Amino acid sequence: MQLGLVGLGKMGFNMRERLRAAGHEVIGYDRNAEVSDSESLADMVGKLAAPRTVWVMVPAGQVTRTVVAELGDLLDTDDLVIDGGNSRYTDDRGNADLLATSGVGYLDVGVSGGVWGRENGYGLMVGGDEKFVERAMPIFDSLRPEGDREEGFVHAGATGAGHYAKMVHNGIEYGLMQAYAEGYELLAAASEVTDERGVLKAWTRGTVVRSWLLDLLVKALDEDPGLSQISGYVEDSGEGRWTVEEAVRHSVPAPVISAALFARFASRQDDSPAMKAVSALRNQFGGHAVHKAGPTSGSGET
Amino acid sequence: MQLGLVGLGKMGFNMRERLRAAGHEVIGYDRNAEVSDSESLADMVGKLAAPRTVWVMVPAGQVTRTVVAELGDLLDTDDLVIDGGNSRYTDDRGNADLLATSGVGYLDVGVSGGVWGRENGYGLMVGGDEKFVERAMPIFDSLRPEGDREEGFVHAGATGAGHYAKMVHNGIEYGLMQAYAEGYELLAAASEVTDERGVLKAWTRGTVVRSWLLDLLVKALDEDPGLSQISGYVEDSGEGRWTVEEAVRHSVPAPVISAALFARFASRQDDSPAMKAVSALRNQFGGHAVHKAGPTSGSGET
Amino acid sequence: MQLGLVGLGKMGFNMRERLRAAGHEVIGYDRNAEVSDSESLADMVGKLAAPRTVWVMVPAGQVTRTVVAELGDLLDTDDLVIDGGNSRYTDDRGNADLLATSGVGYLDVGVSGGVWGRENGYGLMVGGDEKFVERAMPIFDSLRPEGDREEGFVHAGATGAGHYAKMVHNGIEYGLMQAYAEGYELLAAASEVTDERGVLKAWTRGTVVRSWLLDLLVKALDEDPGLSQISGYVEDSGEGRWTVEEAVRHSVPAPVISAALFARFASRQDDSPAMKAVSALRNQFGGHAVHKAGPTSGSGET
Amino acid sequence: MQLGLVGLGKMGFNMRERLRAAGHEVIGYDRNAEVSDSESLADMVGKLAAPRTVWVMVPAGQVTRTVVAELGDLLDTDDLVIDGGNSRYTDDRGNADLLATSGVGYLDVGVSGGVWGRENGYGLMVGGDEKFVERAMPIFDSLRPEGDREEGFVHAGATGAGHYAKMVHNGIEYGLMQAYAEGYELLAAASEVTDERGVLKAWTRGTVVRSWLLDLLVKALDEDPGLSQISGYVEDSGEGRWTVEEAVRHSVPAPVISAALFARFASRQDDSPAMKAVSALRNQFGGHAVHKAGPTSGSGET
Repeated sequence: MQLGLVGLGKMGFNMRERLRAAGHEVIGYDRNAEVSDSESLADMVGKLAAPRTVWVMVPAGQVTRTVVAELGDLLDTDDLVIDGGNSRYTDDRGNADLLATSGVGYLDVGVSGGVWGRENGYGLMVGGDEKFVERAMPIFDSLRPEGDREEGFVHAGATGAGHYAKMVHNGIEYGLMQAYAEGYELLAAASEVTDERGVLKAWTRGTVVRSWLLDLLVKALDEDPGLSQISGYVEDSGEGRWTVEEAVRHSVPAPVISAALFARFASRQDDSPAMKAVSALRNQFGGHAVHKAGPTSGSGET
Repeated sequence: MQLGLVGLGKMGFNMRERLRAAGHEVIGYDRNAEVSDSESLADMVGKLAAPRTVWVMVPAGQVTRTVVAELGDLLDTDDLVIDGGNSRYTDDRGNADLLATSGVGYLDVGVSGGVWGRENGYGLMVGGDEKFVERAMPIFDSLRPEGDREEGFVHAGATGAGHYAKMVHNGIEYGLMQAYAEGYELLAAASEVTDERGVLKAWTRGTVVRSWLLDLLVKALDEDPGLSQISGYVEDSGEGRWTVEEAVRHSVPAPVISAALFARFASRQDDSPAMKAVSALRNQFGGHAVHKAGPTSGSGET
Repeated sequence: MQLGLVGLGKMGFNMRERLRAAGHEVIGYDRNAEVSDSESLADMVGKLAAPRTVWVMVPAGQVTRTVVAELGDLLDTDDLVIDGGNSRYTDDRGNADLLATSGVGYLDVGVSGGVWGRENGYGLMVGGDEKFVERAMPIFDSLRPEGDREEGFVHAGATGAGHYAKMVHNGIEYGLMQAYAEGYELLAAASEVTDERGVLKAWTRGTVVRSWLLDLLVKALDEDPGLSQISGYVEDSGEGRWTVEEAVRHSVPAPVISAALFARFASRQDDSPAMKAVSALRNQFGGHAVHKAGPTSGSGET
Repeated sequence: MQLGLVGLGKMGFNMRERLRAAGHEVIGYDRNAEVSDSESLADMVGKLAAPRTVWVMVPAGQVTRTVVAELGDLLDTDDLVIDGGNSRYTDDRGNADLLATSGVGYLDVGVSGGVWGRENGYGLMVGGDEKFVERAMPIFDSLRPEGDREEGFVHAGATGAGHYAKMVHNGIEYGLMQAYAEGYELLAAASEVTDERGVLKAWTRGTVVRSWLLDLLVKALDEDPGLSQISGYVEDSGEGRWTVEEAVRHSVPAPVISAALFARFASRQDDSPAMKAVSALRNQFGGHAVHKAGPTSGSGET
């Protein structure tokens, strides 16, 4: 089918390739003329036949909201906008309502798969009305991995459900990554194990912990033994925070996902104000030397 | 090759099947005569040709140590004992030294794969001397999954390394399971998502969080929708504890693995003494009704 | 000085007593006529001489916002409203702006001290303009503990700072309570210590962990040895959640405060969906009996 | 009464002062001749009249065990050794048994109070036989704070109970310190609060979180505003680790105390291997720039 695609960055570019390879006609628009198929959003819309379907794949937040609003002005009744970015699910209701004033439909889609999606297919989680989901199904079927539809696609619920599911997916991802990372650090710290990369590799088939993330960790260690070329400064892109906030909102204990998030925060601190306070306290009550390198003992205090 | 196999429970039984299917001659011994191939440990040893290799697959701890000691009396120089149970790595040095007095070799092997290993193969992590590893390699090659050896097997280091690696594997496993579990609970709690099983299923291909554990969680939900037939009381079998203790010993931060372990502990408490203390404190300073069901507010206190 | 006081519940009632004992004229209003000094909010306002100061001590959230709005209609230029409830700091800007349209001033005050405040005085954290802080200082000085003003009172910053400080106070409180509670549970679990109440009591003077909360825990144990009369079901009143949300917003690692919050969430679950998922997973890969009471071993899995 | 005191470091020196001020005769021994009252352990013992009581206040572990063994050789039936250092409780049984072969008694005493104990008195937790506790009571009564005995002293149980209680005391201390530290960091991070030192100070009277540790934190901030002279590198002296290990042993959930311990571990890492692994993983699946400073978005991944 025909699709307008706004945003041809790392994700959008690859998705266009995958869709075209599947026989779809994709009219892309990006501010970067080198990759764009059209001169403007309006130009792109003009090249689409009604009823139009436009997939938005731009940075979450204000950029996405602005593009959606502009599309609301350019599109007509029975057209459809799909937000496939990492928007917070709380944005979806507003986007849907705004477009509804022009009779335009809206789907929110959580997309997973990263740079590997072009080849392997993307995991898709969709929120919105069934009739729009059906209309866009040819696109979804081409983006998701080959095989059973339900192994790479879900219509998770009404508006917002797609991004909600993607948010939880990413929250889980934080926990999984941290679990592997803690185990890796322990293997590296223990003199008993002399080949930690080999241990991780041996887990990639047959074991309970096998996963795609584990495969990637082995690949990273093969490319950079000892991870010597990389720093432990770890960014986050928001979904982990939202997951913790949702856990708080729903009174769901999330010790693992929150611990993974906080580990990232701590990784970005040159010197932690909290730990300075702990150090100051130890100094106050125990007379512990503040920078003293060895353990202290017999002092009656911690 | 020929192998003695002590312990034909859930794991040992399946391993015998897999080894026999691969053409090995396995003489098993188990206290349960219905599954045993021999009448006693001595009888089993008597049926093996020197140099003998005996795989021990019995409960970790005292049972394993006792069997190893008995084998030390029954075996001769250049024979080999392999402990494939979930022994703590700290047991391995003692076992190896004890057997060495009889000239008997020792390998410790961490085995992963659970009840699925018979079909899929087992992930193997081995500790000990290279010459014994090579001798037992036909067995290892048949137990591990088909394909590249290093994707299902590692000689991780000297005595103890195999069980150390398996311990860390299981510690990671605790973290992974808890991460999925927290995400599942959040999906179930949020009204936005109406098909949490469908969401998990849609993650099994193409997404970043795809893994064998995720496949199993979907399978569990298919067999028991809503997990209504299962309680949240979760045992542990020791490796998670050991992993946390090793993290403490090596000053490795392990917030995720420890959180997963403590969540299991808490799951087994009918009423937590700690939370009774918190409740008592709230009552003391705030006059909060102790069982009061709704949130309190405006009282100046938490 | 003269003060209108809206809300004569647990906190407001005691504060009126303390203020009257200090010689202030307090005109209280409460929906409960038995404790009220006036028939309505309007009646209360009518009994105050301009410029009026009205302290609001009602449940946080909609109730407080409604009372503040009603006071905005009843009061005049240069009057002052003080919100002493446990409002979220994000409410303060709206309250202040609304009142400003009538020329009425606004202070937000975090109040700590619980039911003991009447006797010991209340810790006060104030946000808002200096001129209003000064006007209300006679009230603050009477509410706070005797002694140096800065040991029980702070003008923490502009509008919202008082409730922000109170929120963090309560977040810390969650962490402190949980720390004592974990230690208490461990003392109770260990056979080495036969008098855990005595141990806690011995900490109340001279040790590094002495505190008012510790005194209260000893008191609770004296009143209810073994805490047998209390359940481990622990409510929360919102500030702990807000603190975690603020930590997330500011990228501040808060592992202890969040762990304390999540422990409360878990304490309120009869059966945890997350732990059901973990139990189901163990069953899937290991064939572990789902409710099995003893540790499992030698099975190759956790 | 008369007391031998081995170890005149930070703690022992102050304790000698406090005991002498209370009228006791203290014969100290330390390797540092400048502070020692005797030339050797044997010399010190020779100056004591039977039945002798010797208090050991040296670094925990091998040093303490060695001193206790030497005292076993020097002392006679009915003499008494008291280990007041921060020994792990598991050392006490061995010490007691060793001394018992010479008919010498043994008490283990956890001592809290740090450098302030000389003036304020020390909190004391004692393990061992009642008859020895009674004999040493004049010493205990002089070391503990004035006032009710049970507010600064407890006979917590049999051999090991004193150090066990001290261990838990210190574990709690880790949690308390971290709770204050997280709150401090949040106050410092939030622009709403402009006087975080003032807020902490205002909590020192009247509030629920008041404590000696809070007083010390205010003192530290007064001495070093913003804690600019101190680094966030925080040592630990063992008791926190032991507490976590005991929690694991007793299946007691200890999320707060373990989080506080792990925060210290992390504070000492220049670059975390675990976080390098997380960073490497993000790079693998998302093509995230490894050091990229800003948040990433719209990429479909975390």
